[in-house]
Amino acid sequence: MEQDEFSLIRLLTAGRESEEELRTRGVVTGIGDDAAVAALSPGMQLVATCDTMTEGVHFLPVTMRDEDIGFKAMASNISDIAAMGARPRYALIALSVPPGADVEQIRRIYDGLYECAALYGVAVIGGDTTATRSGIVLTVTVLGEVAAGGALLRSGAKPGDAVFVTGPLGGSAAGLAWLLRRGVNAAQWGTLPSAEAELVRAHTRPLPQVAAGELLQRTGLCHALNDISDGLASEAGEIAEASGVGLLIAEELLPQAEGLAACAEELAADPLEWVLYGGEDYQLLGTAQEADMGALREAFAQGGLSLHVIGRVTDADGGVRLQRPDGTVQPLPKRGYNHFAAN
Amino acid sequence: MEQDEFSLIRLLTAGRESEEELRTRGVVTGIGDDAAVAALSPGMQLVATCDTMTEGVHFLPVTMRDEDIGFKAMASNISDIAAMGARPRYALIALSVPPGADVEQIRRIYDGLYECAALYGVAVIGGDTTATRSGIVLTVTVLGEVAAGGALLRSGAKPGDAVFVTGPLGGSAAGLAWLLRRGVNAAQWGTLPSAEAELVRAHTRPLPQVAAGELLQRTGLCHALNDISDGLASEAGEIAEASGVGLLIAEELLPQAEGLAACAEELAADPLEWVLYGGEDYQLLGTAQEADMGALREAFAQGGLSLHVIGRVTDADGGVRLQRPDGTVQPLPKRGYNHFAAN
Repeated sequence: MEQDEFSLIRLLTAGRESEEELRTRGVVTGIGDDAAVAALSPGMQLVATCDTMTEGVHFLPVTMRDEDIGFKAMASNISDIAAMGARPRYALIALSVPPGADVEQIRRIYDGLYECAALYGVAVIGGDTTATRSGIVLTVTVLGEVAAGGALLRSGAKPGDAVFVTGPLGGSAAGLAWLLRRGVNAAQWGTLPSAEAELVRAHTRPLPQVAAGELLQRTGLCHALNDISDGLASEAGEIAEASGVGLLIAEELLPQAEGLAACAEELAADPLEWVLYGGEDYQLLGTAQEADMGALREAFAQGGLSLHVIGRVTDADGGVRLQRPDGTVQPLPKRGYNHFAAN
Repeated sequence: MEQDEFSLIRLLTAGRESEEELRTRGVVTGIGDDAAVAALSPGMQLVATCDTMTEGVHFLPVTMRDEDIGFKAMASNISDIAAMGARPRYALIALSVPPGADVEQIRRIYDGLYECAALYGVAVIGGDTTATRSGIVLTVTVLGEVAAGGALLRSGAKPGDAVFVTGPLGGSAAGLAWLLRRGVNAAQWGTLPSAEAELVRAHTRPLPQVAAGELLQRTGLCHALNDISDGLASEAGEIAEASGVGLLIAEELLPQAEGLAACAEELAADPLEWVLYGGEDYQLLGTAQEADMGALREAFAQGGLSLHVIGRVTDADGGVRLQRPDGTVQPLPKRGYNHFAAN
């Protein structure tokens, strides 16, 4: 790669978002100076998050195309903003690539990053492109805004609350299992049967629930909110811990991704495992007063959004538990994907 | 590293900044939820930058202790905020470490990050700690604020302006040369002669010129501003290009870091090379109307800050040039450190 760093960044970022688009989105000074300058709306507070995806740890070249790596890195950060009930506005991209990487590969990663950003009206305002010893390392920072004092935290769940999710679970894990066991070449994804293609898509192109998060924030009815990046069980544990409550989840109420059962059967896998521990579904998990669920359902239906009650908040003694279809109740340990764990 | 990711992040970040300190700095929700929430002051715009440091590219273990890696990564980002005339407020840290890294090493990197953040009143509000295949990759995002419409860009220099820098140059490059050629073990730095220790310190612990940047912004007299991360010649070229002007720099006026000449003699190196192309001095390079330099000098003196006029802005035809002590003038090509270049 004998590309001048400045001209490389220009090559990757120029013309992606027009000057007018950037201005409309609040950008005062974009890429090209020492730092970017951008506006927040009056009365809003800043919301900020960053996440890193590293090759060989968060993804493998056999399961993710370059474009998908970019798309998913942007999506996972936008999801964290959505989980605060906030609106994503700006992004900064730090991409480190190994010596063997060519400009076309880097450009494809940027294609995915910008595709996801555009989908959510996010302006890319800065970044850094560097060399690394081996393996792609991609860190995305997303900045958003929320009405002052109105961010939706994990810590507000109250006993008696209903527990809800904004969409089907397990799809991302099923898609990953499919990709890993079948060793599908990335280029063939377009030819998959539609149900399996959707599961693969749930893994490679997750869609953060920004509209649902903003709606929950606006209604003022949501007590606690998390996005499901590490699996339902893990995120339920986060809410329980932060709020000092327990959560009782009903297995029968858990919405499964379409085609999940068939895929599990084909791969001799347990779909419930995917639903509870798979993670990376990027749906929102929240709680609200039982009496407010009717109003929430209506607001969601009007917005064309889905909402599924999956259980209720109990006192802390219960911990996080799962009610099986036969009525028995068992603990639901917080066990999601953790790349620092020994296993 | 058999550490749970959540408890690792807690271990690295807990107790570094007290709840009260964080609140005083504007943090509404810090590390521990999906994203952080923080306030900007009324009437201010957001300023954002991110920079990556990778092992083997931006630093070598023989020249940088773990604490220095952290300190410098934070400092280089704070410097970019200073170069906009803005005030740094918040930081997010994304650290990827190879399998061999132990928790103590990671903690030392965080020690340096927090040491620099504390020095500039920056609150660490988020981050991500991940594994990487090989070599440390550290991306820091710093967020600041500046009066709406008042950011100092590269593009405002006007022919006739004076060109100034805020402090001595070449120290970082000299310190690096010293470390590389002498192969000094990091642990021995404390025993160096003081002049050399200062040069080494300029390389490992650079101090961004936030007070100078804010002062320049407040006076309203500064036309263009850059921080010297890639070397004076390169940054002068950036201002010239962005402003559509030329810059004539007088070699005799360039302030050299203390001990630079002696160090250059000892290492048989050219101190001017370090001053012009060394980079990473993190001083500010700016322009202002000649007639306003008196007022600026006074403001700087009152603030206990230094300011050195080193040349003047010409029309674009001249390009960036250096006037030698004998009066001859030669082009000063934009050639800084570029890790994508072939050499």
